Amino acid sequence: MHCPPYCHNKEIHDECGVFGVHNHPEASTLTHLGLYALQHRGQETAGIVSSDGSSKFNVHRQSGLVADIFRQKVLKKLKGHVAIGHVRYSTTGSSVSCNAQPIVAGYWDGEIAVAHNGNITNAQKLRQDLERDGAIFNTTMDTELLIHLIARMRNCGFAEAFVESMRKFQGAFSMLGVKGDTLIIARDPRGFRPLVLGRKDDAWIVASETCAFDIIDAKYERDVEPGEVIVINNEGMTSFFPFVHMQPKLCVFEYVYVARPDSIINNQSVYRKRYKSGRALAQESPVEADLVVPIPDSSNVAALGYSHESGIPYQLGLIRSHYVGRTFIEPDQKIRDFGVKIKHNAVAPMLRDKRVILIDDSIVRGTTSRKIVKMVREQGGAKEVHVRVASPPWKHPCFFGIDTPNQEELIGSRMNVEETA
Amino acid sequence: MHCPPYCHNKEIHDECGVFGVHNHPEASTLTHLGLYALQHRGQETAGIVSSDGSSKFNVHRQSGLVADIFRQKVLKKLKGHVAIGHVRYSTTGSSVSCNAQPIVAGYWDGEIAVAHNGNITNAQKLRQDLERDGAIFNTTMDTELLIHLIARMRNCGFAEAFVESMRKFQGAFSMLGVKGDTLIIARDPRGFRPLVLGRKDDAWIVASETCAFDIIDAKYERDVEPGEVIVINNEGMTSFFPFVHMQPKLCVFEYVYVARPDSIINNQSVYRKRYKSGRALAQESPVEADLVVPIPDSSNVAALGYSHESGIPYQLGLIRSHYVGRTFIEPDQKIRDFGVKIKHNAVAPMLRDKRVILIDDSIVRGTTSRKIVKMVREQGGAKEVHVRVASPPWKHPCFFGIDTPNQEELIGSRMNVEETA
Amino acid sequence: MHCPPYCHNKEIHDECGVFGVHNHPEASTLTHLGLYALQHRGQETAGIVSSDGSSKFNVHRQSGLVADIFRQKVLKKLKGHVAIGHVRYSTTGSSVSCNAQPIVAGYWDGEIAVAHNGNITNAQKLRQDLERDGAIFNTTMDTELLIHLIARMRNCGFAEAFVESMRKFQGAFSMLGVKGDTLIIARDPRGFRPLVLGRKDDAWIVASETCAFDIIDAKYERDVEPGEVIVINNEGMTSFFPFVHMQPKLCVFEYVYVARPDSIINNQSVYRKRYKSGRALAQESPVEADLVVPIPDSSNVAALGYSHESGIPYQLGLIRSHYVGRTFIEPDQKIRDFGVKIKHNAVAPMLRDKRVILIDDSIVRGTTSRKIVKMVREQGGAKEVHVRVASPPWKHPCFFGIDTPNQEELIGSRMNVEETA
Amino acid sequence: MHCPPYCHNKEIHDECGVFGVHNHPEASTLTHLGLYALQHRGQETAGIVSSDGSSKFNVHRQSGLVADIFRQKVLKKLKGHVAIGHVRYSTTGSSVSCNAQPIVAGYWDGEIAVAHNGNITNAQKLRQDLERDGAIFNTTMDTELLIHLIARMRNCGFAEAFVESMRKFQGAFSMLGVKGDTLIIARDPRGFRPLVLGRKDDAWIVASETCAFDIIDAKYERDVEPGEVIVINNEGMTSFFPFVHMQPKLCVFEYVYVARPDSIINNQSVYRKRYKSGRALAQESPVEADLVVPIPDSSNVAALGYSHESGIPYQLGLIRSHYVGRTFIEPDQKIRDFGVKIKHNAVAPMLRDKRVILIDDSIVRGTTSRKIVKMVREQGGAKEVHVRVASPPWKHPCFFGIDTPNQEELIGSRMNVEETA
Repeated sequence: MHCPPYCHNKEIHDECGVFGVHNHPEASTLTHLGLYALQHRGQETAGIVSSDGSSKFNVHRQSGLVADIFRQKVLKKLKGHVAIGHVRYSTTGSSVSCNAQPIVAGYWDGEIAVAHNGNITNAQKLRQDLERDGAIFNTTMDTELLIHLIARMRNCGFAEAFVESMRKFQGAFSMLGVKGDTLIIARDPRGFRPLVLGRKDDAWIVASETCAFDIIDAKYERDVEPGEVIVINNEGMTSFFPFVHMQPKLCVFEYVYVARPDSIINNQSVYRKRYKSGRALAQESPVEADLVVPIPDSSNVAALGYSHESGIPYQLGLIRSHYVGRTFIEPDQKIRDFGVKIKHNAVAPMLRDKRVILIDDSIVRGTTSRKIVKMVREQGGAKEVHVRVASPPWKHPCFFGIDTPNQEELIGSRMNVEETA
Repeated sequence: MHCPPYCHNKEIHDECGVFGVHNHPEASTLTHLGLYALQHRGQETAGIVSSDGSSKFNVHRQSGLVADIFRQKVLKKLKGHVAIGHVRYSTTGSSVSCNAQPIVAGYWDGEIAVAHNGNITNAQKLRQDLERDGAIFNTTMDTELLIHLIARMRNCGFAEAFVESMRKFQGAFSMLGVKGDTLIIARDPRGFRPLVLGRKDDAWIVASETCAFDIIDAKYERDVEPGEVIVINNEGMTSFFPFVHMQPKLCVFEYVYVARPDSIINNQSVYRKRYKSGRALAQESPVEADLVVPIPDSSNVAALGYSHESGIPYQLGLIRSHYVGRTFIEPDQKIRDFGVKIKHNAVAPMLRDKRVILIDDSIVRGTTSRKIVKMVREQGGAKEVHVRVASPPWKHPCFFGIDTPNQEELIGSRMNVEETA
Repeated sequence: MHCPPYCHNKEIHDECGVFGVHNHPEASTLTHLGLYALQHRGQETAGIVSSDGSSKFNVHRQSGLVADIFRQKVLKKLKGHVAIGHVRYSTTGSSVSCNAQPIVAGYWDGEIAVAHNGNITNAQKLRQDLERDGAIFNTTMDTELLIHLIARMRNCGFAEAFVESMRKFQGAFSMLGVKGDTLIIARDPRGFRPLVLGRKDDAWIVASETCAFDIIDAKYERDVEPGEVIVINNEGMTSFFPFVHMQPKLCVFEYVYVARPDSIINNQSVYRKRYKSGRALAQESPVEADLVVPIPDSSNVAALGYSHESGIPYQLGLIRSHYVGRTFIEPDQKIRDFGVKIKHNAVAPMLRDKRVILIDDSIVRGTTSRKIVKMVREQGGAKEVHVRVASPPWKHPCFFGIDTPNQEELIGSRMNVEETA
Repeated sequence: MHCPPYCHNKEIHDECGVFGVHNHPEASTLTHLGLYALQHRGQETAGIVSSDGSSKFNVHRQSGLVADIFRQKVLKKLKGHVAIGHVRYSTTGSSVSCNAQPIVAGYWDGEIAVAHNGNITNAQKLRQDLERDGAIFNTTMDTELLIHLIARMRNCGFAEAFVESMRKFQGAFSMLGVKGDTLIIARDPRGFRPLVLGRKDDAWIVASETCAFDIIDAKYERDVEPGEVIVINNEGMTSFFPFVHMQPKLCVFEYVYVARPDSIINNQSVYRKRYKSGRALAQESPVEADLVVPIPDSSNVAALGYSHESGIPYQLGLIRSHYVGRTFIEPDQKIRDFGVKIKHNAVAPMLRDKRVILIDDSIVRGTTSRKIVKMVREQGGAKEVHVRVASPPWKHPCFFGIDTPNQEELIGSRMNVEETA
């Protein structure tokens, strides 16, 4: 399988959240709550664009957390019965707020707004082509490409232009677009990123995960299918499959640590997936020990599965702080494992002289794991520390998506880190 | 046992955190990190006062989170080898930043700074006496009383005046005071609020909980004893017990939900206490069921104890959001259990048609429990919901502190809420 | 005449503005507008305390400009029919917002609020006495003394205690106090700082200058007399003169540069005073020249008087920027007279080869004058520059107040700086 | 002469300031100071883009005042020896910060930055053409057009593309562009908006007005000529005149109220122009009166000319506040002429019973004038008020630029508002 080079780049690796409402008098308030429930998918910027069907959008985008940004005063201005929203995760830092979504732009047919979760793998090529054709770019976001492509389709309506443009994209996209009071929803043919469809009263709701439906009492209808485009306007809802068919491959990391465990994506419970992967891991990589301890919070459920399957007791031997800020000043008299301690602390009375199986969600962050192992051993006093990883190792340069039918077998670590005091 | 009326008042019920350093060149940076680790004890305001032994303090107090407040620029100004800090929890809202601690004031002998965790039960009487004697008050904090009392002792030094003043106090106090480079530490005779003593290099460290030692690699020495006063200055450290001896009664809620599970207070592991209380609860109040589910995060450990004792599997059937902000606008079309949903969501695939034992830490917040039960049943689809509470019921008007020797037996719920679908 | 040493200290030299309203339903809105008109008296902090007669005040104090601080949201909370406000000037910088006024404090008889413009010359002595008596201080403001003194009068009502306390003060005070819905106004026996009384509808208004009456359509009634105390409550208004009689001495700098030219203080037009001082200066210190040029804005009117008296044409040869901020980064390649240029620029086409009489308001800032003279000569190209100062020289260590009857003669410069190209 | 309709629209009527530096190690610090001196041309947003010749710009744009925005921390990041800056005036309010300049965009040949003072009269036509060709727009600024046009010139270098694009523009433009370390300067053929060229050490400086040269000790070289394009790069400076020659017509309002009086634009002193227009006005429209009073600050100089020519004494009968903020809450009990009073107040003691000639700079704001006249009569007590306007009346739908040769005769009011008590 061909694996695009950007896949290793955490900076581009995009775990955003999107949310959309069509036909609800309080569209932006619902979007606010939906984005709040999707906050785990992006803590850097948040934005809402609302529309009352006229040519002019209401826009608010800002860096910060959803609960801080959308106070009553802001929401009051976001009038309209159609709205889309976006939360953005990024490790870049520099170009923070200028890259906030949804993007809004004007073209020959009016204004459009677009919110995107994913990565366009042929973005550079498309951008070069567009620049060669005279296009100018104001951001480094792939999303801007879509608007350029739409603006260049001069003989067709919004929905057609949207679809025709998206057909040029390769890679991952869960994309929402608004023009007037038309809402378009598109998911790439492989379905790399999740996208679910729901209803609240007479309104259609779309979101990255179902946890955003729960908070607003919306009913989960179904997943937006891989390769599906849905157009919702005042005449109703139309669905079609304009892209070349491909084998679906939801990004495995959605189940491993991106999505919230209380979400259902691709018709499967994230919690149950994680739990089962923990059980599978216990079968594949058993080890004699006294305790199973998760690295909180993303490994909590898998560790529970490991414990139940192996019969080895589960203990919350690491405590996580939820008040982590941007920077911490370390004293000149260096603190051991400073970076790790900011987020986690060992519960020594439970770990002392014990043989501990530490469950990690993935080995993306190898140095962090190593420091935590050290903390569990030295500060916690564990006699032995065994690490088990609840997701497949990086054998291939990229494992962006995996075949769902075979997923169960793959889940489980073939890598086996043993560390003994 | 006499129980003061303020005990029912969550508004006054004060769960602050204090931290102090004596004789470290980076006293304020250590205090910053210590307060960050104590953030769970108060999220409303944070403050640090540092001293280089001269008459003038460096002060920074602000509303907000520790990680946001003490950026490099602020810490640079907090010079000195002695520092005390404070995080404040409060449900009052209005008088937010004006009541931030540590308090600083000038009197005939110079400037003093004081940080306090606790409640002075005879505060109103003391205040009236002082006002009758011409004192003026700038805050509604009990802590201000101490400074007034000290200022009125005109024939003795700082340490004596501090102790003599504290002898007038009834109730709970874990108190830190600084004058010049003298640090005074005092804990009330019953030891209602925790206070621990540690060392880092040549410095003395004092904190509400040991988790604040772990983050800075300080070594836990011992608890500040109930009724103990410690004076640390350049000549060294002196300890004495100036108060009338009383039976120690650490506030049970420290173990139940206030303290972090990775802390050791009163020489006992908070985690182990919670775990044992869960086991005891399973013995006392067994019930046939399919799952044990904690209300996260404060009940996580007790629920684990219940599960291990009863043999009923533990599942994280409720997911908690860690991005809760000040206010959320509910849409006009009301959402069921809106308030609860902002913080918790049910994992329906794991709860459906199951008999669930829900473990709560305490029944202080009865209405919340009721809404969560409803959510687990209606949204989660549980067949039966049994609530078990991992702390003793409110038989007495106040149960502020309990006898440690007998605590084990008491822990365990005598109240038994059964709800069946 | 005795001249206290602090008088040379610009840091203590206090040019604040005060404003008060009694019995108006929109007391805080009027106070907001009044403070805005008094903004020239203090740009560092602003504050309003309002009262509806109950025991609890509404308070908002902040560093910044009046127009930025008191937005609708803030004013809405400042309910009540009585209000006092304060704008504070200070060159100290450090203790900025903690020293904002009005001060509010609680004592045996309830809460009081105080706003003050002036300097208590025996403050240090009073403070020491109070500290010796056990008082604690939270600010470095003289104003805090008053509250301590009041709190110590335990056998009399608010008004009596206020007056008795003020009798202990030496120096300059234009003081407003509120308790419940009683407003007290006091001016020191010499009347160092201005204070005027007005009416709007059924309300009494008090302000540092009449320009604060104009903006709210209040009618100027009369000056608060030197040594007068006025008590306004629901029964009406009472005036009395409790202090030892002294020769009135309004601070000459009020007329020279502190007050706004459109104000009337001590029954005299500030504009007319400045204009006359310019005329007198022309008679006393004539010089042959081509142009009279003011250093804007404080010398504009005096220069006009000089021009009219001398017959030498007036030109605005120096332009002043009104966008001055806190700090400016000077390039490494130093700019000539950088500091002066930030505020003033010469109009070379009008100055070139001319003999210029530069009118300055005072010579408090000698180095500034020197730099401006240099700029007028070098950059402006003036042939000759003669400086005339429209206020008396500092012959005495302090010239805090001068006898009003003799002021006319005194105004006019005895110092004569001649600089020739 | 054809007059475009937008000319009446104050909202579009653009009085911005631009500043540029080529080849100075502290380019952004100089730009900061230059923009500060040009602050009167725009108080809404300010921005600086700096370049060290590489492909990536350093950018900072923000709403607010120059002195508040460009603190040391911000300037440190704006590295490079080339910089351009912009201050923006706008009455629109809504689209505030998103329309800040300089604009930066990427295209096939790299990144470019553009800052613009002026109005492109064929902007709508150009925009429609570009949109028809697939262009998308992110702002409502004319400036964005230029970047689109440049991006579409695929066979030529930056300077050529810049010039070719500008040849499509009609209307007013004083435009700065940067790519790498090339700085391009262009002024429209009529020279509607001012643009001056200077030197500081080895650096070239360009600015809207010479007052920006004075503050940084730069030497005024000459005006950028109407129709001139200047390209400055490491090889040196080239000038050429690529546009169709037209009769120069500097916008009369630059002399009337936009520019600072200490500036020289089009080789003429703004101060001298205003002064002469006042003298001409006195000759053309004499009236018997006691006082000449300017409406400060923009009429100060013209009023002085009127006074000197007529022999009627000049008095500063209106005082202006320089602390005006965004909004003021008017009490329910309405204040007479509230809006006017926020900015101006009458000096009654000088106006009472006098016959006053009020000098206004223009009658653009008719209602303001009327309210000021009312204030001078009613509050100030003037016996008669005569208004004289120091700029030509609006006979034509637009008087955007006038022939300089004939300007002298035109200046002077043909309209004559007489109001008598």
